[in-house]
Amino acid sequence: MRFIFYVLFLVITGKVTAQESHPKLILTAEDVRGIRENLGTVPIFDNTLEKTVTEVDAEMAFGIDVPKPEHEAGGYTHERHKRNFLFMQKAGVLYQITGQGKYAQYVKDMLLLYAQKYPTWGLHPSKKSYAPGRVFWQALNDANWLVYTSQAYDCIYTFLTKKERSHLEQDLFYPFAKHISEDSPQFFNRIHNHSTWATAAVGMIGLVMDDEKLIQQALYGLKNKEDAVAETALDNDGGFIRTAGKLGFIANLESPFSPDGYLTEGPYYQRYAMYPFMAFAVSLYNATDDTNLFTYKNSVLVKAVGALLQLSNQKGEFFPINDAQKGMSVYAREIIAAVANAYHYGNQDTSLLSVAKAQQRVSLDSAGFAVALAISKNQEQPLKKKSVVYGDGSTGEEGGLAVIRAENTELLYKFTSHGLSHGHYDKLSFMYYVNGEEMVQDYGLARFVNIEQKNGGGYLKENTTWAKQTIAHNTLVVDEKTQFDGSYKDASAHHSNLLFESIINPKAQVVSAIEKNAYPGTIFQRTFFIITDDELQNSLVVDLLHVTSEKQHQYDVPFYYLGQPMEHNIDLLSEKQLLPLGSEHGYQHLWKIAEGKSSNRLMRFNWLNKNVFLTRTLLNQSGDRYILVRTGANDPDLNLRTDPGLILRRNATHTTFISTIEAHGSYSPVSEFAVNSRSQVKDVRAEVTTERYTAVSVTLTSGKQFLLAVANNTKDKSKNHSLTFGAETLSWTGPYYFKSIQ
Amino acid sequence: MRFIFYVLFLVITGKVTAQESHPKLILTAEDVRGIRENLGTVPIFDNTLEKTVTEVDAEMAFGIDVPKPEHEAGGYTHERHKRNFLFMQKAGVLYQITGQGKYAQYVKDMLLLYAQKYPTWGLHPSKKSYAPGRVFWQALNDANWLVYTSQAYDCIYTFLTKKERSHLEQDLFYPFAKHISEDSPQFFNRIHNHSTWATAAVGMIGLVMDDEKLIQQALYGLKNKEDAVAETALDNDGGFIRTAGKLGFIANLESPFSPDGYLTEGPYYQRYAMYPFMAFAVSLYNATDDTNLFTYKNSVLVKAVGALLQLSNQKGEFFPINDAQKGMSVYAREIIAAVANAYHYGNQDTSLLSVAKAQQRVSLDSAGFAVALAISKNQEQPLKKKSVVYGDGSTGEEGGLAVIRAENTELLYKFTSHGLSHGHYDKLSFMYYVNGEEMVQDYGLARFVNIEQKNGGGYLKENTTWAKQTIAHNTLVVDEKTQFDGSYKDASAHHSNLLFESIINPKAQVVSAIEKNAYPGTIFQRTFFIITDDELQNSLVVDLLHVTSEKQHQYDVPFYYLGQPMEHNIDLLSEKQLLPLGSEHGYQHLWKIAEGKSSNRLMRFNWLNKNVFLTRTLLNQSGDRYILVRTGANDPDLNLRTDPGLILRRNATHTTFISTIEAHGSYSPVSEFAVNSRSQVKDVRAEVTTERYTAVSVTLTSGKQFLLAVANNTKDKSKNHSLTFGAETLSWTGPYYFKSIQ
Repeated sequence: MRFIFYVLFLVITGKVTAQESHPKLILTAEDVRGIRENLGTVPIFDNTLEKTVTEVDAEMAFGIDVPKPEHEAGGYTHERHKRNFLFMQKAGVLYQITGQGKYAQYVKDMLLLYAQKYPTWGLHPSKKSYAPGRVFWQALNDANWLVYTSQAYDCIYTFLTKKERSHLEQDLFYPFAKHISEDSPQFFNRIHNHSTWATAAVGMIGLVMDDEKLIQQALYGLKNKEDAVAETALDNDGGFIRTAGKLGFIANLESPFSPDGYLTEGPYYQRYAMYPFMAFAVSLYNATDDTNLFTYKNSVLVKAVGALLQLSNQKGEFFPINDAQKGMSVYAREIIAAVANAYHYGNQDTSLLSVAKAQQRVSLDSAGFAVALAISKNQEQPLKKKSVVYGDGSTGEEGGLAVIRAENTELLYKFTSHGLSHGHYDKLSFMYYVNGEEMVQDYGLARFVNIEQKNGGGYLKENTTWAKQTIAHNTLVVDEKTQFDGSYKDASAHHSNLLFESIINPKAQVVSAIEKNAYPGTIFQRTFFIITDDELQNSLVVDLLHVTSEKQHQYDVPFYYLGQPMEHNIDLLSEKQLLPLGSEHGYQHLWKIAEGKSSNRLMRFNWLNKNVFLTRTLLNQSGDRYILVRTGANDPDLNLRTDPGLILRRNATHTTFISTIEAHGSYSPVSEFAVNSRSQVKDVRAEVTTERYTAVSVTLTSGKQFLLAVANNTKDKSKNHSLTFGAETLSWTGPYYFKSIQ
Repeated sequence: MRFIFYVLFLVITGKVTAQESHPKLILTAEDVRGIRENLGTVPIFDNTLEKTVTEVDAEMAFGIDVPKPEHEAGGYTHERHKRNFLFMQKAGVLYQITGQGKYAQYVKDMLLLYAQKYPTWGLHPSKKSYAPGRVFWQALNDANWLVYTSQAYDCIYTFLTKKERSHLEQDLFYPFAKHISEDSPQFFNRIHNHSTWATAAVGMIGLVMDDEKLIQQALYGLKNKEDAVAETALDNDGGFIRTAGKLGFIANLESPFSPDGYLTEGPYYQRYAMYPFMAFAVSLYNATDDTNLFTYKNSVLVKAVGALLQLSNQKGEFFPINDAQKGMSVYAREIIAAVANAYHYGNQDTSLLSVAKAQQRVSLDSAGFAVALAISKNQEQPLKKKSVVYGDGSTGEEGGLAVIRAENTELLYKFTSHGLSHGHYDKLSFMYYVNGEEMVQDYGLARFVNIEQKNGGGYLKENTTWAKQTIAHNTLVVDEKTQFDGSYKDASAHHSNLLFESIINPKAQVVSAIEKNAYPGTIFQRTFFIITDDELQNSLVVDLLHVTSEKQHQYDVPFYYLGQPMEHNIDLLSEKQLLPLGSEHGYQHLWKIAEGKSSNRLMRFNWLNKNVFLTRTLLNQSGDRYILVRTGANDPDLNLRTDPGLILRRNATHTTFISTIEAHGSYSPVSEFAVNSRSQVKDVRAEVTTERYTAVSVTLTSGKQFLLAVANNTKDKSKNHSLTFGAETLSWTGPYYFKSIQ
């Protein structure tokens, strides 16, 4: 709160308290002295420094090239300019730390070339972006350039003469900042990670140049251009550009973050946005003495780092919700920097040190040094990955997501709001991991980031036609249509709701959420129980999907297992020729491999993946059909992976899909031993399935039984329930019931 | 040679020099004393011992079960009996090393149960095997049981009374040995890994019981049953059973091993057969004082271990030729034992110690102790994985196979004989690895070993209809037919021939082989050059496949890349509905995804796998068609993996398929940097393609050029050649030419 007043004060008085000494962004003169004094005594920092010297020396030996912009992502000029800003930043830092003039000279030479050429470049020749850059095909990458280059400039500021600085500022930095701000309000004035980059870039160069106007624009947006963009304007991802009344860096810090630090776009984009959030916050802190954005909104920036770490699987890879490329992880450079900043400018949480230690690299700045120093003193504590439930939206009340962890199991359950333009239509979907490996997957995005062969590294058309569609996710599809009928506007107006959660009792964790708007007239509630028990090889997932509708619908519930089917009890009829499963809403991308019914009360599907045996057991109903599919249809450019899936199709009004998922055994191709290759679940029974209650019993082969019940469509924690079936009467208080019986 | 005389002596005099003291198979009383004295000072041995004590104690606590035989592989009784013999062997060894009677008692109790029950068991209820067992569904597993159990009996021999021994021998071991020998001549009297197990089992129990007749039978087979099996009899894999005049352990050591130690069935089966080869050889050595099979045939058993290690990729996994399950590796228990034996009973090759060190476990016997002791004295030297060319067949002149290694590249080239009943119809096929990862794969087998859900862990029908067929391999298919028309008899009567090889010059390695019989009337020669150069990111593969036929044929050349296509220049027309590519010879298992021609002189196919970018560049001819396929058609039981392939189809008489394969770049999903994502090969030109010569130039993007020429269908090293094209005249001696031009 203190900050808000301070900012208001700034606005009113126009006074900027930026320090005059340099450097002042990610390093200060005082920090530099401390670092120099301790060189050789702080292993991780020293190692990073050594690696960086090697890298930068090799790059300097290669020579400087500032080519006329021509290519998109992955192409030469794009990658060259990207390397340029990354290496200028590194060289600038090396100049400060080592004191060797050659590094400053390298930055200076390159900046002078940019200052000479930039004014001659018009817009980038690619016309694809809603906000084109001049160096890169999109202004976003230009903003990346300035965020990094402002640090380089800050580091060599005192190495330059006043005349040189004046030349660089007038011919390069001011026009550069103008292009990504005043000349591109559709890019600068948004609530979006694009604008975080844009405002941070302008703010950081403003701090270096001590230009109050730029700093104000960065913090609060272009007030004069608030209406410059049409309300219906869309970006390249089909997202709305305007968010009425919200603009500038502070608004971007305020709006998309939940109080717990979850960014509505999901961890892949949160990782990407963390860098400018952090870099500008650090710069403001160092350059102004008293502007500490790290305490803003109850330290949301620090919490955001914790949330990012929790939103990664056992291998450290982010759960790929929304448009997310798989494999991105806590080892990314943005997270290396974010962890250090959260530690140093936050509350010195020593569990962050263990992450930094695993990363084996720190940022070469004040924060990275502090982290390395603390590690050298063995101050790190293990980071505890635990079950978490994050709210979505600025108040945390717009749905959310949960990661339920138990032993080697991780289940991500998504009931968020739409998540801006990179959001998917996947309310109440899940993904399931064992040992950090995807066992039931979310497809992720249809894009190969920075690989030029694939549409210049940009989004592929299949991202829209497949990856965003509901059928691409492990959730309910009604009448073969995408949720919200694929309308971004409608999807953005709604969110799912958490009904209840309990992740305290390790024996039985439960999270339940409801979705009322994705399919008008159809309400669906999904409850996941994760049961952990000595008699189970691994934790057992129980999935209760309760659907209510007055009208008859076709319900599809896809299940994107990864691996090789071992056995099942479906009377599958393999197709002699394959056809796409449908013609729109993503169905056109699925080959129909086989279809069949099961004559058993329980449908069983057993498969092997990454040397783990798994089984899904599902309460079969007469008329249920099972469709084996594989992605890759209508994909002339071979953009899609070809992954398998099993769709359950049921025609019903009200119905409950009851199933379990378990990892119960292992295989070794070296010893050729198969251990517990078959399910530990002997029986699943629907004891009660009414509009008001769902009660299920699960019996293990060992004889042990679990009883689970949900009072449907309520979150009331104080209400008493009583339910009788057979000889059993369950009485409990609150929305759910769990009991284990030997 | 000395041994041959010794054996003759044995035969003539009937004298057996077996020692009377016990143990005498894999441990001797003297060795045991040495081990006991050094316990606690030899880390790897101590650690293995500790782990084994933990394992055996846990198993003993679980209790003994000797169930009536019922299930096949993967099923309870099969796995239980398998665990029984493995744990009896371990417990026996623990009794010797620790001196604790509880281990001997455990073995004794279990043996007494077997002695009580075995006589009451008839044949195993499964009727699948050509040679059924009584404990297991196939006599092979019964032989496994006896190889291990004879060691256990040997270890506790002196713990038992004479009466107990007599009971065990009369009621268990004699009838057991009789069943797998005299009662199963079709199993015992073969040249096959089955018979190696059978003869070793009978020989080892013969040594323990000091029974000369059994030892003789083991070494030389059942002479009286030589004609007991019909010449046309087949085993379960469709292989012939009889090999006239060859029977017994010695013949199995003589015949299927090449002089360099390559076993004709390939490394997966060689690994499996090594255990009985080694165990019986060690037992003979220890039990008879002067019978050293390790020096037999120029130490072929020791060489065999070296060959096995070389026939594994960078990760230690065996190249999966013939029926081989992927993932089997040098970390298998059989190799752990074999490495120790080759070291201890061979020539103390210190490079084997580094393998043992990586395995982190040794066999608990004399050899394992010697290895662990040497490692504790830091005597290990690195094992050098190098390019190798192995001949096939007992004289090494029945074709062969090569592993060409260069930097991170490994190319396996197969021009073997058929390799007995587990052989594939895949003459002149290859597989290609980078960083130990499969980039161009061989499908391997269609089986899930020991996974009961899949046909009791046995071979699946798709192993015959798909995995063995020529189209499942990276080689030539003529007129959509499998080589030798799929006739095992014809295939077994022929082999490919090595023409020339040079693996000395690391800049340019070359291996060329020819196949004249697979397709009567069609001769094909395939030459692989692997070029390594500073200007190449990775070594470059040049593939020259020269086909000669008087008649017009349809030639299919499949290319089973793994990964995601990035770009290509084929005018691909994707199929709107998928059909199998054919109806027999394996084609019925391929879905046809797309087909097209390329209007370019060079067909380019660029893909990404395991974060490596690769490109195949192929000299396109007018009329060439490219067919994109995926396995999985006609697979009602979902037994196949669904892997991609690209088939080049050309109609011609004489023709040469000229192509390059390169790994030229990398991708990181963490940094999102794509490095060198496009081919380094700028041009490939066919300078000369006549019946006599193939000359090709390859030009890199850097301007560097390579000139390669082959004098077709000759191995003459002294012949002079001269070839003129354009302004160039090449003159050279021998079958090939290579020059690099800056």
